[in-house]
Amino acid sequence: MRLLRVGPPGRERPCVLDREGVVRDVSAWVSDWTGSALDPDFLTDLAGRLAAEATRLPRVDPGARRVGPAVRPGGHLVSIGLNYRDHAEDAGMPVPAEPVVASKSPWTLSGPYDDLLIPPGGDRTDWEVELAVVIGRRARYLPDQHAALGHLAGLCTANDVSERGWLLDRGGQWLKGKSFESFSPLGPYLVTPDEVGDLGSLRLTCRVNGRLMQHSSTTEMIFEVPWLLWYLSQFLVLEPGDVVLTGSPGGVALGRPDEPYLRPGDLVETEVAGLGTQRQRCRRAKTRPGRKGTR
Amino acid sequence: MRLLRVGPPGRERPCVLDREGVVRDVSAWVSDWTGSALDPDFLTDLAGRLAAEATRLPRVDPGARRVGPAVRPGGHLVSIGLNYRDHAEDAGMPVPAEPVVASKSPWTLSGPYDDLLIPPGGDRTDWEVELAVVIGRRARYLPDQHAALGHLAGLCTANDVSERGWLLDRGGQWLKGKSFESFSPLGPYLVTPDEVGDLGSLRLTCRVNGRLMQHSSTTEMIFEVPWLLWYLSQFLVLEPGDVVLTGSPGGVALGRPDEPYLRPGDLVETEVAGLGTQRQRCRRAKTRPGRKGTR
Repeated sequence: MRLLRVGPPGRERPCVLDREGVVRDVSAWVSDWTGSALDPDFLTDLAGRLAAEATRLPRVDPGARRVGPAVRPGGHLVSIGLNYRDHAEDAGMPVPAEPVVASKSPWTLSGPYDDLLIPPGGDRTDWEVELAVVIGRRARYLPDQHAALGHLAGLCTANDVSERGWLLDRGGQWLKGKSFESFSPLGPYLVTPDEVGDLGSLRLTCRVNGRLMQHSSTTEMIFEVPWLLWYLSQFLVLEPGDVVLTGSPGGVALGRPDEPYLRPGDLVETEVAGLGTQRQRCRRAKTRPGRKGTR
Repeated sequence: MRLLRVGPPGRERPCVLDREGVVRDVSAWVSDWTGSALDPDFLTDLAGRLAAEATRLPRVDPGARRVGPAVRPGGHLVSIGLNYRDHAEDAGMPVPAEPVVASKSPWTLSGPYDDLLIPPGGDRTDWEVELAVVIGRRARYLPDQHAALGHLAGLCTANDVSERGWLLDRGGQWLKGKSFESFSPLGPYLVTPDEVGDLGSLRLTCRVNGRLMQHSSTTEMIFEVPWLLWYLSQFLVLEPGDVVLTGSPGGVALGRPDEPYLRPGDLVETEVAGLGTQRQRCRRAKTRPGRKGTR
């Protein structure tokens, strides 16, 4: 099953994309893609109900509407650092002995085709294609990695955008360089695990202005998804709707002295094979305060 | 106004504590203390309505009921590090040139009197009394620190519990040592700014088994609250319900080689003057999985 959210920011409606490419609004059955609506058992039941009754649900033209982040923002957004050897080399950092775990503001989650906002004065904004894992069931002190997969709602393509100046030069933790608005495009859809196949051999690509910058596979991960979830569950509780960005392969601007960082007008396209392609146009963030209550 | 949440974990109801010490359930008017219910203008209107109509609302006996975290978990939970000179000395770290910004899982938020769960194998669990700031209105690229106070919902007492082993010895970011369940008691109540007075001169204390371990004042902060919020707004968007823990003064176990870290049975009492006292009994976390769907 492929779950997506369609509508203006903050007012997206939960939808499902069927095998014929038809998008159905399921808001009559589900309030949003968050919390208990992401439980694996609930999603299995929903798939059965859709097979029988989908044609009763309203059709949505996704080409004419904004697609939002694949899950509702507001849970924990975790970003695993340096989880591919070539990316650690890009960063000039040692391959970690255990996972480097950073976080991003949950409000960085954005739609897969939303503009990517380059911060004012930010001249080192960088791309990072990643496999995102969405939690569907509470995970707390998992006994081993084999228990982890039962806690997944599904998988998404993500771009774990980072501003290297704020990440590396402003003291303290990486959060500063990872928490700017629009820095976590997630989607276009969440794909349930039964449709993904082996999480350990998914191809990842990132293109900037059509040129291939990142091209790797989850086979190159240092810490694999089930083990990562087990590890995280030893020091935090994962709740439904939490998102884990599992690390980026090499090929980012940080490791390419010959290439510029992102600039207004650039087009970034990220894809995890089978999970859909994202496309963000870069523009400079406006810092004038928005009207009260708008985002 | 003093806002609190009363009820079992995940099912708390929004309440208000009046000047006579009476707690009223306001769930007829407000769904929970989160989002737009924390807007400063909304809270001002609510105070007026309460003055006229509070006696119509059901009374709650807080002594007979659990008090939850003062705001609903979910959202960004930010922890400022090393924001008091004596704490930087405790940690053997330099006084930072700009704020150290870490995060905690939002699911660490717990009630002010809930048990503090010491992680399995965790033998360096440490107390940190802090002033917590709760955001009431979206803050994005604030023009200056003077603009910050208009974005506050209120202030709370907090304990920014940390496991020093996971924080310092496990590689990468501080998040690992700060994200265990029960590690962010918040409350007992959120106090609106009009009842707090000068944020720059609030006394903070922490007692362990009755002995005074931390005793300081927000006068000793390196980076003051309005400036901190301005600073955060330059690289992330603060949304209503986000919580900023503004740093702990010296006196934690990390800086007291003569004192043990927290052990099962210990009693921790934290207070920010005027914002109420917390009291947590320590016990060892059970790692056996809970029943499905329970917390």
